[in-house]
Amino acid sequence: MSATGLPFDDIRALIAQMPTPDMRARHDARHRQEELTKPSGSLGRLEDIAEWMASWQGRAPSVNRPVVAVFAANHGIAAKGVSAYPPEVTQAMVENFAAGGAAINQICASFDLGLKVFDLALDYPTDDISEGPAFSEKDCAATMAFGMECLADQPDLLCIGEMGIGNTAVAAALFAALFGGTAADWVGPGTGHDAAGLERKRAVVQQAIDLHRPHFGNPLEVLRRLGGREIAAMCGAILGARMQRVPVIVDGYVATAAAAVLQALDPSALDHCLFGHVSAEPGHQAALARMGKVPLLALGMRLGEGTGAALAAAMVKAAVACHNGMATFAQAQVPNRD
Amino acid sequence: MSATGLPFDDIRALIAQMPTPDMRARHDARHRQEELTKPSGSLGRLEDIAEWMASWQGRAPSVNRPVVAVFAANHGIAAKGVSAYPPEVTQAMVENFAAGGAAINQICASFDLGLKVFDLALDYPTDDISEGPAFSEKDCAATMAFGMECLADQPDLLCIGEMGIGNTAVAAALFAALFGGTAADWVGPGTGHDAAGLERKRAVVQQAIDLHRPHFGNPLEVLRRLGGREIAAMCGAILGARMQRVPVIVDGYVATAAAAVLQALDPSALDHCLFGHVSAEPGHQAALARMGKVPLLALGMRLGEGTGAALAAAMVKAAVACHNGMATFAQAQVPNRD
Repeated sequence: MSATGLPFDDIRALIAQMPTPDMRARHDARHRQEELTKPSGSLGRLEDIAEWMASWQGRAPSVNRPVVAVFAANHGIAAKGVSAYPPEVTQAMVENFAAGGAAINQICASFDLGLKVFDLALDYPTDDISEGPAFSEKDCAATMAFGMECLADQPDLLCIGEMGIGNTAVAAALFAALFGGTAADWVGPGTGHDAAGLERKRAVVQQAIDLHRPHFGNPLEVLRRLGGREIAAMCGAILGARMQRVPVIVDGYVATAAAAVLQALDPSALDHCLFGHVSAEPGHQAALARMGKVPLLALGMRLGEGTGAALAAAMVKAAVACHNGMATFAQAQVPNRD
Repeated sequence: MSATGLPFDDIRALIAQMPTPDMRARHDARHRQEELTKPSGSLGRLEDIAEWMASWQGRAPSVNRPVVAVFAANHGIAAKGVSAYPPEVTQAMVENFAAGGAAINQICASFDLGLKVFDLALDYPTDDISEGPAFSEKDCAATMAFGMECLADQPDLLCIGEMGIGNTAVAAALFAALFGGTAADWVGPGTGHDAAGLERKRAVVQQAIDLHRPHFGNPLEVLRRLGGREIAAMCGAILGARMQRVPVIVDGYVATAAAAVLQALDPSALDHCLFGHVSAEPGHQAALARMGKVPLLALGMRLGEGTGAALAAAMVKAAVACHNGMATFAQAQVPNRD
């Protein structure tokens, strides 16, 4: 904790010290791309990705220790029926992750990605945000710090995902707080809802928005009041990765809400992040557009668990493999244009 | 060759006998998707892909022997300066493929995809299509049959790609013949062109369009007159895969032109095909829209070599891994909705 005794001061201090991209490494990567046996620019976003990786890693890019970090938490607001599934599913899915039975397990196995699941006090949901703040500043800051634990094994690429029954409602409230608009603008079906369920979800989220509106100018206070533990942890993880210059792939709607808090604190705070996909949750495209981020994939997914980010990680692996493994025109004696 | 002695009769006979999807296997796959530990539909296109694979493989889907087949050929029209690169690059890139130095080598290595390169008489380019037909019916039909060789090792997923200096000009002429429009509608920069180069390419393609227009109602005659060897071979490969119920991923602009010939012969001829990506070549999106096909990826690539199809194959592998490897709600004892 900082000298002032306010838990968020440590977070603000980190934000003030964020490293910037290594422009020399970026330049070197661009130079190499121009020499590889392909027309300049013909690998499209794969070329951008190789340069982006180089600029944060500060060297020729590599993906040797990719990690998918999945943060799981429960939400008081779930008691209001904002999800089609009961809150017990969060714990059951954490066990499913451990047993290897979830979608994210199969995707990680397909692409040799490490998987780390962090369950965040599942027996202690945050308070119902439609009735008061989610948690204390101290608890929120501690959860952000805990989120940084996913950097412990020094991954060279970090995918950020989540699991938490009720958390698309929480993310919708966060987006409304950060970007304006009503619950109707940001609430979608999440895991699936009938018309009545969707209406109920909207009403509860609108209640939360109305209750906390006086604090919308303060992003960390917004996180404390409207966020869940997994969102605070993802926020910490993304910031922690930045401090260590680890490139991040952000997953879907809920993970993007965590990222949006950081961007509200500093417009450059997400420069080390790639947005893995745009999900089928309607508010995700709107949020990404507000944030000026272009997602890599659009596969109509809406599962969470880091699944969209992990699929994008496969594209990053391919981009880096092309960058490092391709021959140059000179090496392969391929005639270049001109 | 058929009894009539016309080489294309064998192709027409195959088209008339194309197998249809196994609806029972598709139903079983859909049923399993509903039982897996995720909200129904939440894996988006990954679920569609698993069902599509099952419907063609006629069983639970698998990707154990995926192959990327790259067909390389040279084009008489290249002498008219339709490409920014000299025709010698085709041979040099085939050697680069063999040495492991091209982009497709790295992508195949990243995702454990087999790579087979077929060079099609590189020393004997097809004739200049702006002055006459590309090749004879006999040569064209034999090249289609040769293309089917890529099925020899019984792949369970086949990616179709190409390499051939000048072949985006050829593909543009094919699209104009099959879908209407002028050279300006279909010609793009290909590997890259300045304004003068693009204008030259357009003029040459328009000459070809005008010359062969009387034959535009006959897709196989269009292929013979306007296609190149790699396009005929890809056409044969896609048809051969269909006869063996092997799912196909079609790569970019040029591979799509080969597919379009088959679709013009029979609207259902591409039901076993997934379109891996939409390339940066402007006409590709237009062609896919005309064909009613929605590409899986959009990464701004325009390299060919099967690179977009191979990246899409990674997504197919993940889709099949999820389908086969995930636990059901009952197995994992995860509470389902309701």
